[in-house]
Amino acid sequence: MDNIEENGSNDIQSISEKELIQRITKSFKNKNSSTKVDIGDDAAILRFEKYNLAISQDILVENVHFDLSYVPLKHLGYKSVVVNISDIISMNVKPSHVLVSIAVSNRFKIDAIEEIYDGIKHACSYYSVDLIGGDTTSSNKGLMISVTCIGNTNSEKITLRKGANENDLLVVSGDLGSAYMGLQVLEREKKVFEVNPKSQPDLSSYSYCIERQLKPEARVDILNHLKEMNINPTSMIDISDGLSSEINHLSDNSGLSFHIYEDKIPISDETKKVCEEFKISPTIAALNGGEDYELLFTVPKRFKKKIESSDYLTIIGSSLNKKNDNCMITSLGQKINLTSSGWDAFKNEG
Amino acid sequence: MDNIEENGSNDIQSISEKELIQRITKSFKNKNSSTKVDIGDDAAILRFEKYNLAISQDILVENVHFDLSYVPLKHLGYKSVVVNISDIISMNVKPSHVLVSIAVSNRFKIDAIEEIYDGIKHACSYYSVDLIGGDTTSSNKGLMISVTCIGNTNSEKITLRKGANENDLLVVSGDLGSAYMGLQVLEREKKVFEVNPKSQPDLSSYSYCIERQLKPEARVDILNHLKEMNINPTSMIDISDGLSSEINHLSDNSGLSFHIYEDKIPISDETKKVCEEFKISPTIAALNGGEDYELLFTVPKRFKKKIESSDYLTIIGSSLNKKNDNCMITSLGQKINLTSSGWDAFKNEG
Repeated sequence: MDNIEENGSNDIQSISEKELIQRITKSFKNKNSSTKVDIGDDAAILRFEKYNLAISQDILVENVHFDLSYVPLKHLGYKSVVVNISDIISMNVKPSHVLVSIAVSNRFKIDAIEEIYDGIKHACSYYSVDLIGGDTTSSNKGLMISVTCIGNTNSEKITLRKGANENDLLVVSGDLGSAYMGLQVLEREKKVFEVNPKSQPDLSSYSYCIERQLKPEARVDILNHLKEMNINPTSMIDISDGLSSEINHLSDNSGLSFHIYEDKIPISDETKKVCEEFKISPTIAALNGGEDYELLFTVPKRFKKKIESSDYLTIIGSSLNKKNDNCMITSLGQKINLTSSGWDAFKNEG
Repeated sequence: MDNIEENGSNDIQSISEKELIQRITKSFKNKNSSTKVDIGDDAAILRFEKYNLAISQDILVENVHFDLSYVPLKHLGYKSVVVNISDIISMNVKPSHVLVSIAVSNRFKIDAIEEIYDGIKHACSYYSVDLIGGDTTSSNKGLMISVTCIGNTNSEKITLRKGANENDLLVVSGDLGSAYMGLQVLEREKKVFEVNPKSQPDLSSYSYCIERQLKPEARVDILNHLKEMNINPTSMIDISDGLSSEINHLSDNSGLSFHIYEDKIPISDETKKVCEEFKISPTIAALNGGEDYELLFTVPKRFKKKIESSDYLTIIGSSLNKKNDNCMITSLGQKINLTSSGWDAFKNEG
């Protein structure tokens, strides 16, 4: 094709996914009054009278987003739905419907497809989401899964990436870094297996990290928890690409900065132990690891006590009326800039 | 993976896409009262008070659904949106929103992606559809595009694949077989080009067929036309897989059979000429070719005169209160069974 040049600056790896999307979609113009939020948030928002619909779509590609040498097909089906459910939840909307399209090469047999759909069924059942459509087709190589997730609400309380105010508290659910460390364990075991296919690894001391990597959950329980506490976040995002990247998204969209405290970042004991074994800083795992699918959100300062009383939430910092000054105060009192260096689909390509 | 066996009956090619989808989704149970139509029609239907939403999702894979050696990227972007718009239109719903996810290998440059999005933009603009989301990611090989299309209406007049009654007229819009013959021309030129890259083909006498293949349109104009004539179809489908396959879908869903007349099938003069050149029966091109994206629908017999007065519609047959007896009466008066032998993504895999 003559429209593909060979010079460096035209390379897809030379820009981030975000820059690429901004570049290609800037000239699109909306024509429908129902379109309330389009590209750039975790999900789009459509409004039909009193109903708000949140819609997101993702595509997962074999050997880019998952490795079938250690990801069971059932888990893959489950996770592919959950990561999209997480996008809807981060809009403060409960997911209700999914469409799943799968392209597979003829290396896959019918029962392999059934395994994937078994995982999809479990996710649908667990999150009370209906599978309403999709497409099943062939590919020349590998497996691709594309999922569209829809949620609906008649509440006005949608949360976007924008909306944080000065002096808001920055809050995270659950703990961070475990999914990334689970991936490190699985990658290591893959290499061991390649050398010695008869190895029978004991992975029991990594079970939490591995489960977080293979079978993450979307935090729909946190939406209920916040509702019970009568707290409506001012902005929210789910942590798919690492805490640092997500903080930068909230910061960019709200036009302010966040300061966070290293010793406040919630990290499980198992994750810390695995980090020690792999000689990876737990903070780095949390900041840059990704795939935790926890919620990161801002709330007004007056909710400090309520948040502190929760077993599921941690205040990790607060917002400042400043631009481009996202930083972490380390345990030693140093100030480190937080760059948007989370996982990027193009830049991390092998 | 130990769940992939090597015996024949487990091969994906051994069953049709429809059989596969039925098998893997039969145990799914809906939990949301908003779900009105799920898997098995051209689009799902969700209902939120007086609003009906139609949603469909498709996945297009390089060298399975398109060949970049003769499909310009801009046309590919345009067509990938149009084929999904066509699914929404076939529910008698106007499309309003799309989400597009693209996975590309690093063989593609930024301007190649921009070309695809330029085509997507043209389709969005022409059909007044808003691009509201999606995903852009990398693949190890080739290009995949997944599109979700949404339409909305506050009318009750949704048309499904089911709903045809005894003695309804079977009607088709436009003409058939041209997109398939356009594909034959492009495939031939590709072979010529491989032998002699300096060849400068004159494709002017194939222009209609090639345009129908590369840049199909969804018949939103037919929805308006039917509305103006005050006709609401009893069942409807778009012709993506060939007339024969689509007739079988309407027949299966409505529990009756259709008889059609070979000499009534609308085929353009150019298509007939190209068929002659390629020694392909024009009837076969129309029945099994696919990708025409015309509408096939049923209407009560009382609309016969109105339909006959239309420049865009042709009555090709009618329905009978019988099961499994879809057939075509040939120009010579023979009766030929119409099997569901349209294009199937798995069975036609190279």
